[in-house]
Amino acid sequence: MAIQLQQLAELVGGRIVGDASVSCAGANPPDVATPDDITMLDDPSRVDVIATSQAVAVVTSEPIDQVDIVQLVVEDPHAAFSAIVAHFRPPMSVNIPGVGVDSSAQIAASASIHPTATIGAGTIVGERAVVMPGVVIKPQCRIGDDCVIHPGVMLYEYTELGDRVVLHCGTIIGAHGFGYRQQEGRHVPTAQLGYVCIESDVEVGANVTIDRGTYGATRIGEGTKIDNQVQIAHNCRIGKHNLLCSQVGIAGSCTTGDYVIMAGKVGVADHIRIGDKAILCAQAGIMHDCEAGGVYIGSPAMKQREQMQIFAVQRRLPEMRKELKSVRRDVDALTQSVETANDDQRDEQDRNEQNRAA
Amino acid sequence: MAIQLQQLAELVGGRIVGDASVSCAGANPPDVATPDDITMLDDPSRVDVIATSQAVAVVTSEPIDQVDIVQLVVEDPHAAFSAIVAHFRPPMSVNIPGVGVDSSAQIAASASIHPTATIGAGTIVGERAVVMPGVVIKPQCRIGDDCVIHPGVMLYEYTELGDRVVLHCGTIIGAHGFGYRQQEGRHVPTAQLGYVCIESDVEVGANVTIDRGTYGATRIGEGTKIDNQVQIAHNCRIGKHNLLCSQVGIAGSCTTGDYVIMAGKVGVADHIRIGDKAILCAQAGIMHDCEAGGVYIGSPAMKQREQMQIFAVQRRLPEMRKELKSVRRDVDALTQSVETANDDQRDEQDRNEQNRAA
Amino acid sequence: MAIQLQQLAELVGGRIVGDASVSCAGANPPDVATPDDITMLDDPSRVDVIATSQAVAVVTSEPIDQVDIVQLVVEDPHAAFSAIVAHFRPPMSVNIPGVGVDSSAQIAASASIHPTATIGAGTIVGERAVVMPGVVIKPQCRIGDDCVIHPGVMLYEYTELGDRVVLHCGTIIGAHGFGYRQQEGRHVPTAQLGYVCIESDVEVGANVTIDRGTYGATRIGEGTKIDNQVQIAHNCRIGKHNLLCSQVGIAGSCTTGDYVIMAGKVGVADHIRIGDKAILCAQAGIMHDCEAGGVYIGSPAMKQREQMQIFAVQRRLPEMRKELKSVRRDVDALTQSVETANDDQRDEQDRNEQNRAA
Repeated sequence: MAIQLQQLAELVGGRIVGDASVSCAGANPPDVATPDDITMLDDPSRVDVIATSQAVAVVTSEPIDQVDIVQLVVEDPHAAFSAIVAHFRPPMSVNIPGVGVDSSAQIAASASIHPTATIGAGTIVGERAVVMPGVVIKPQCRIGDDCVIHPGVMLYEYTELGDRVVLHCGTIIGAHGFGYRQQEGRHVPTAQLGYVCIESDVEVGANVTIDRGTYGATRIGEGTKIDNQVQIAHNCRIGKHNLLCSQVGIAGSCTTGDYVIMAGKVGVADHIRIGDKAILCAQAGIMHDCEAGGVYIGSPAMKQREQMQIFAVQRRLPEMRKELKSVRRDVDALTQSVETANDDQRDEQDRNEQNRAA
Repeated sequence: MAIQLQQLAELVGGRIVGDASVSCAGANPPDVATPDDITMLDDPSRVDVIATSQAVAVVTSEPIDQVDIVQLVVEDPHAAFSAIVAHFRPPMSVNIPGVGVDSSAQIAASASIHPTATIGAGTIVGERAVVMPGVVIKPQCRIGDDCVIHPGVMLYEYTELGDRVVLHCGTIIGAHGFGYRQQEGRHVPTAQLGYVCIESDVEVGANVTIDRGTYGATRIGEGTKIDNQVQIAHNCRIGKHNLLCSQVGIAGSCTTGDYVIMAGKVGVADHIRIGDKAILCAQAGIMHDCEAGGVYIGSPAMKQREQMQIFAVQRRLPEMRKELKSVRRDVDALTQSVETANDDQRDEQDRNEQNRAA
Repeated sequence: MAIQLQQLAELVGGRIVGDASVSCAGANPPDVATPDDITMLDDPSRVDVIATSQAVAVVTSEPIDQVDIVQLVVEDPHAAFSAIVAHFRPPMSVNIPGVGVDSSAQIAASASIHPTATIGAGTIVGERAVVMPGVVIKPQCRIGDDCVIHPGVMLYEYTELGDRVVLHCGTIIGAHGFGYRQQEGRHVPTAQLGYVCIESDVEVGANVTIDRGTYGATRIGEGTKIDNQVQIAHNCRIGKHNLLCSQVGIAGSCTTGDYVIMAGKVGVADHIRIGDKAILCAQAGIMHDCEAGGVYIGSPAMKQREQMQIFAVQRRLPEMRKELKSVRRDVDALTQSVETANDDQRDEQDRNEQNRAA
């Protein structure tokens, strides 16, 4: 699969700054790119992400002086990078598979595939894996050993499952991310060329949806458990041994640490980072990053201690309002009384002055 | 399909006021009825909706004097209208289809239908449409050109898709609306005789549910994009180019304008109207109509500016409570001090008066 | 299926206290056990639940003196009870069924089964039941008369449906409950050996998920109606004639009375009890038991009257904050003014005293 940068430059109509004979074997975002990958810089002010990336080369709209990396300079880096990703992982969402197991799929001898399941070209199924009735696995997926894929599960192309992954009925892995740009008053889908990688020992409940990454992987870390009807959007990287309860929704490009717990119906906005062992309580609405070990409650969510104090006062709001009115009345009465007393005092002073003057 | 009103009157046991020889070819609610349709008035005080309807005739429980329209007078308009709707669109939810493509379905030569898909009687599939494994399309559906229907999608009878509609895996279009009436302590389903119409260039994510209308269409406007796990209830009319993010839930009979955006987990109560370009923020709970261009936050939702002010004060509630207590203490102390001063002053006045009198 | 307690003791390596020749025919939690069942006490301080149980025998870690019931004493009651439940209802989630209807299934002559449906060993399907395309019914299920199972519905093993049950497309009944215990830093699934029982006249919408019980049944009461995308967790017991609107989520081991209504997106924490005819408003977050007939709003939810008062004050928070600041200013000004007046008065008194002394 390796290809020389010169050939990629010809593919996308760009020019190479640096050694054009260098090869790469994949394309990934800067922070997850390996030394075999080409990556992309779409925001020239973020040179730092390239400086710390392991990528061998970068697609960029203008030459970058500060970094020692081969550069593929093009007018539209997104379009060029999409074309390069598509070279490595050709899109095939609308290709219709054959019936049953494709002749080019590699099914381990000890795996069990129900005759009504569909398995696409090039897909690999590991030892003792079980694929139940009505399951559809699109081309080029990798299913590890001892996986159990319950009835009606659908895996889009390029999905990767580690070993001992369990997917319950009706779960959909790898649908297109919800990304659009407006163009002449219409929403045009942005490239959704990535895939989903679910690491070993993950269990996923029923009717869950996990979308593919934009260019690279949406990743679910080892040992994480996901309850029914959870939604995980494109580019998320969920850590290891998380517990995501039912009806949780996580927007695009979020990352979580290890041992994070999200209770039922938690919602997380896009690009949020959740630290290790953070606990997000039921129905929390997470709008900001959460620190490791923190407990978050409410919508918008706050740290537990702070939020509980606020909740306690909220329950007393009607009483507070009455008290505020009462204080206002007392202050007004007191002001009146003081003014009267002051008037009296002034009158008295006048009388005393006249008296003293007399 | 056209039928004379006299025949409909015989079908439902009613009488015609006006020209019984007039024909109609469909049945629809007043506001969407065409000049070929018969409609229904279930609330005699709402004659205005008939006056502005284009329908050629109306089913009513009593003759309406104010409008110049042919009338079919019956005892129970709902039951009669249900029977008429069922005449035009016979219910068939429990009919079991054959295997594969029904011989009466019309499949364009350039369409691709996977052999494990089921396509019911009378369904029409357009040019270059792709129907993936395990898809079930019930009878009498219309699928436009270039549609992509991913694995495991289920379309109930009479569903209509425009051109270039994409439906992702596990999405269910046209299930029965959640409507019941109580009868002797039991919930009895009301008629769910409508269908779903999805206009061109709509993309729908995975595991979405869109329910059929009661009598007519639940409609999704052209170019609208719907993310995973969204629920849209019966009779909703979603405008053009909306963006509905994941896990949004819209209750029955809501309408939205064009370019509306609903962020993740927004909930909208039934019969709500949302204006053009309104933005409903994540987890918002919409209990009232939203004006065009408005931004709404919170549950219950308010306009952004107002809600942000309230949120800001909420965060300071514990501090406010302390301040209120402090003000109360100060007022009480001041009251005490003023009373003491007043007493002193009165004593002094007494002494002065005695002095002046002396 | 009946087995003598002595044999169960040998199966799990325990000893019998009482009459070892007694037989039992099932295993269930204390509160739902019948006189044919063995039950379990996992918390020795809860002897009361055994005293009121109808079970014929109990698995316990230590002999219980206070109750007159045959006892099976073992070191680890959970492990032993799991083994006993598995004896009566062998786990088979990973067994792959055959194609079409298993030869040992009993299908009523008047039932309609689509050829693409899968029906497992020992499953019974009642008169006039309709099983649509792509439905998967695992082994040992019981489907009553006149049930309609729409396309793509998946029933795990041992699921029981009463008569006239309707399940809409994409609904998943009986997936494993979300229960884990931590062991050396990993989440290990706890036993999920129970099943789902849906009583007669229940209608369930599209893409709903109802998880099996841990040892016994998750139960949906007669006549209850469930809207799309509802999630009901393991061990819940939903009463009769409930209405559960779309996207409701109910955590494990909750019970509801009869005629309970939950509006859209309600979330209920685990082990909550909801009384008859309680109404939970849209997006409510239920953290405590709800009394019969009560109306609950908000997250965390409160009784309607109280919550509405709080909401009303919340809308006025910015105004309250201004008023509090204004009161503080007035109090400070008044304090200043009183101090000045007091100083004046003291000066005046001094002058008067000098005058009087003169």
